[in-house]
Amino acid sequence: MEENKRKKYQKDKDRLSTKLGYLQRVLKDYGVPVMIVFEGVHASGKGRISNELLISLDPRYTRFYATHTPTEIELRKPFLWQYFVNTPSSSEIYIYYRSWYSLYIAMKNNTVKNERYPENRILLEEIRSFEKTMMDDGSELIKFYVEIDEDKQKKHIRKMYDNPRTMWKAQEYDRDNDDDYRKEMEAIIENDQKSWIKVTYADRYETVNEVLEVIIEKLEKRAEAEKKKSEAKKEGNDGFFDGKFPNILKKHEGDFDISKEEYREQIDRLQKEMRDIQYMLYEKKIPLVLVYEGWDAAGKGGNIKRVIQQLDPTGYEINTTAAPTDLEFKHHYLWRFWREVPKTGHISIYDRSWYGRLMVERVEGFASNKDVKRAYKEIRDFETSLTNFGGIVIKFFIHISKEEQLERFEARQEDENKVWKITDEDWRNREKWNKYEEAINDMISETSTEDASWYVINGNSKRYARLKALQIIIDTCNQKFLDK
Amino acid sequence: MEENKRKKYQKDKDRLSTKLGYLQRVLKDYGVPVMIVFEGVHASGKGRISNELLISLDPRYTRFYATHTPTEIELRKPFLWQYFVNTPSSSEIYIYYRSWYSLYIAMKNNTVKNERYPENRILLEEIRSFEKTMMDDGSELIKFYVEIDEDKQKKHIRKMYDNPRTMWKAQEYDRDNDDDYRKEMEAIIENDQKSWIKVTYADRYETVNEVLEVIIEKLEKRAEAEKKKSEAKKEGNDGFFDGKFPNILKKHEGDFDISKEEYREQIDRLQKEMRDIQYMLYEKKIPLVLVYEGWDAAGKGGNIKRVIQQLDPTGYEINTTAAPTDLEFKHHYLWRFWREVPKTGHISIYDRSWYGRLMVERVEGFASNKDVKRAYKEIRDFETSLTNFGGIVIKFFIHISKEEQLERFEARQEDENKVWKITDEDWRNREKWNKYEEAINDMISETSTEDASWYVINGNSKRYARLKALQIIIDTCNQKFLDK
Repeated sequence: MEENKRKKYQKDKDRLSTKLGYLQRVLKDYGVPVMIVFEGVHASGKGRISNELLISLDPRYTRFYATHTPTEIELRKPFLWQYFVNTPSSSEIYIYYRSWYSLYIAMKNNTVKNERYPENRILLEEIRSFEKTMMDDGSELIKFYVEIDEDKQKKHIRKMYDNPRTMWKAQEYDRDNDDDYRKEMEAIIENDQKSWIKVTYADRYETVNEVLEVIIEKLEKRAEAEKKKSEAKKEGNDGFFDGKFPNILKKHEGDFDISKEEYREQIDRLQKEMRDIQYMLYEKKIPLVLVYEGWDAAGKGGNIKRVIQQLDPTGYEINTTAAPTDLEFKHHYLWRFWREVPKTGHISIYDRSWYGRLMVERVEGFASNKDVKRAYKEIRDFETSLTNFGGIVIKFFIHISKEEQLERFEARQEDENKVWKITDEDWRNREKWNKYEEAINDMISETSTEDASWYVINGNSKRYARLKALQIIIDTCNQKFLDK
Repeated sequence: MEENKRKKYQKDKDRLSTKLGYLQRVLKDYGVPVMIVFEGVHASGKGRISNELLISLDPRYTRFYATHTPTEIELRKPFLWQYFVNTPSSSEIYIYYRSWYSLYIAMKNNTVKNERYPENRILLEEIRSFEKTMMDDGSELIKFYVEIDEDKQKKHIRKMYDNPRTMWKAQEYDRDNDDDYRKEMEAIIENDQKSWIKVTYADRYETVNEVLEVIIEKLEKRAEAEKKKSEAKKEGNDGFFDGKFPNILKKHEGDFDISKEEYREQIDRLQKEMRDIQYMLYEKKIPLVLVYEGWDAAGKGGNIKRVIQQLDPTGYEINTTAAPTDLEFKHHYLWRFWREVPKTGHISIYDRSWYGRLMVERVEGFASNKDVKRAYKEIRDFETSLTNFGGIVIKFFIHISKEEQLERFEARQEDENKVWKITDEDWRNREKWNKYEEAINDMISETSTEDASWYVINGNSKRYARLKALQIIIDTCNQKFLDK
């Protein structure tokens, strides 16, 4: 390229970089996570373009994520796990060098071993749900497909061959023919033209500036929209609790006591069976997710302890869910739970869970009406991702009566070894019993699915609830083993 | 076992559990991280004991870490990486089911492929340094070795054989004969008897209570010590800056300007060489760590950009170091840097780094005199872990004169595109120039080692500094390639 032209491009790039840096700071202040995807065939310039982009952005708030052959751990987690846990927080920009689309194509063509998803359709549905979930949550998603004419591509690769230090990379490209990739990507884009930006690689200078311009245009538009939104009135939680709901919990009230002797005999037997179940899960590589929800003092912790009592500690984790940390708060509310989904063959137990979105966050108004409505589907989709992958999801709601809760609160208050367990917040939550009751009933009816049902368990008798939970886990797992 | 005896043990266990729960809360309030290690041969009851321990502890503040065959990623990181990143925060207890000792033995016996550490002695030194670092930082480390007589062990394994669901695990035990492990562990303990507690597995009830009692005794002692410490006077930073130090920076002052034309020509050549270096690092599986320190406005960010300009973005990361997050603050200060060490073949660039401990933390008094003295060795050890693993560590201090800094501050203040880069803190730091100068000189003389030298680069001319840094990286890497 002639020197003058190069200088002009350089000057343009500097101007564009400054503008992009400015927009990054603006969107960071609005709390908008930005996801920029680069797909494209080998040696099409994706690397160069994203590198220039990285240089223009503030490294404190920018991450680069390269799609790679899945690691052992990634293969032991659901399809999109690696992407879900690598999404930007509300102050970050993520650049994806190849993305979930490349992974999808590799799985479709069995370049990446795919024994868990019999139908490709399922993978595409998960991609759609993932992108929608991110965008609904406020993420700006920009997807580029970089094309290059075949002569230029060949020239790029030949140049790598000529350099002894890069030869091995060119050889890799040769082995890994990407005609299949190109065809698949073209079909994907054909079906979803609006969401893709095609860029044809001309030369390093021209193409980088073209991409910068597109990104700037998108981010400017977004910044304007955010400005308008911030000036508009905030959405409220008006009329959300109307007291009208079929009371599912009611059906699970009453006394179900069990004698100490019977309990001891049964619990011992069930715990031994549970240990066998654990070994079977491990051998069959099935991940098990156990969700425990319930009123304060319903006995969730004690129930969980009885489940794990005879288990091998190398095969389960207990995840307790407290208020989100700063970093968690800056991500989609499911992000932290994605980070904890079990590996194949492992058991993940959640003492409180993502259902906080539909209980405390709804009752306290941290989640708007819209958020809550969206969360029903998002949570169903999240659990479907787990069951699509072959996992078992069992959800318990331990239900106690309001009177029983009062008795337990008072007993805790009087026991010096338990008084730390009860806080002012527990008392405040108790005052909102009716709101919680409505939220819980809505939650149960909206998120009970065929593969991930809710089990309401009467917890007035702890002994009954413990036996019941164990029995349900054992039966569900045994049923699954038979199905396989 | 007779029913009465069992009942007695159960009662004792309940009492011990309550006490342990109490101590966990006390030590959490004092901010003491607790590490409990269980080593022992197969089927010696480690799993049962640690499971009972887990049940006694508060799951919100307890983690269980099982040593496993290293994953691909773990094999691409230094020896103790998996443990360093899995250390408890100041409110947590970690239980290690097998530990760095098992990993050491597996590497010594080549059960885990060990091509990077020619001498086992190095691995043992790293273990000693790791444990010392953790304890110096306030961690309580309790190490158990669980023994079992051979008849009982055989009985345990036979029982697993008899159950079709656990048979495969017994078969694994059979294949994986652990006589070697036993011999090694006995030698290790022989050499370090004071730090180990031997427990002989009798039966589930008795042994669990014995372990609980030992832990309680240790934690009680620690709680008392913490109580005394909190009543004693706080250690100060008195007389720490005395203005007496050989001024290394002085040697790197003066003007080293370079013409635009010469710069353009050279930078282009060096950047292309740097790209080749990256490919070589990748091919030879050598991780490269680049540390950038320097005065505010010294031009670290711009220098880094010139290094990466022509690189493949899939092979480097830029780690910017801001004030620690809550979670980082609750760990050893090196913890967050351990989390970011490069994989083999990758380049990790640090824009500011662990040296904050010796600069801002010392100057601001966040680290005590004792902390700083300890940090010199800890940092040397940390970098040695990286070079032991075959990594290259290059550290730059970009030095500008006080006058040059003032000019740059003022220029930033006047440029609307750069004004966000300058904060009140920068001005405050400038007022402490002399203290920083002393801290930096001490840091450079205390942490320059043969394998991880400091390079002070005159940064008054940005062009000079950029060329110089690139040249040093290229020369150092090429030298390493020759050595290999």
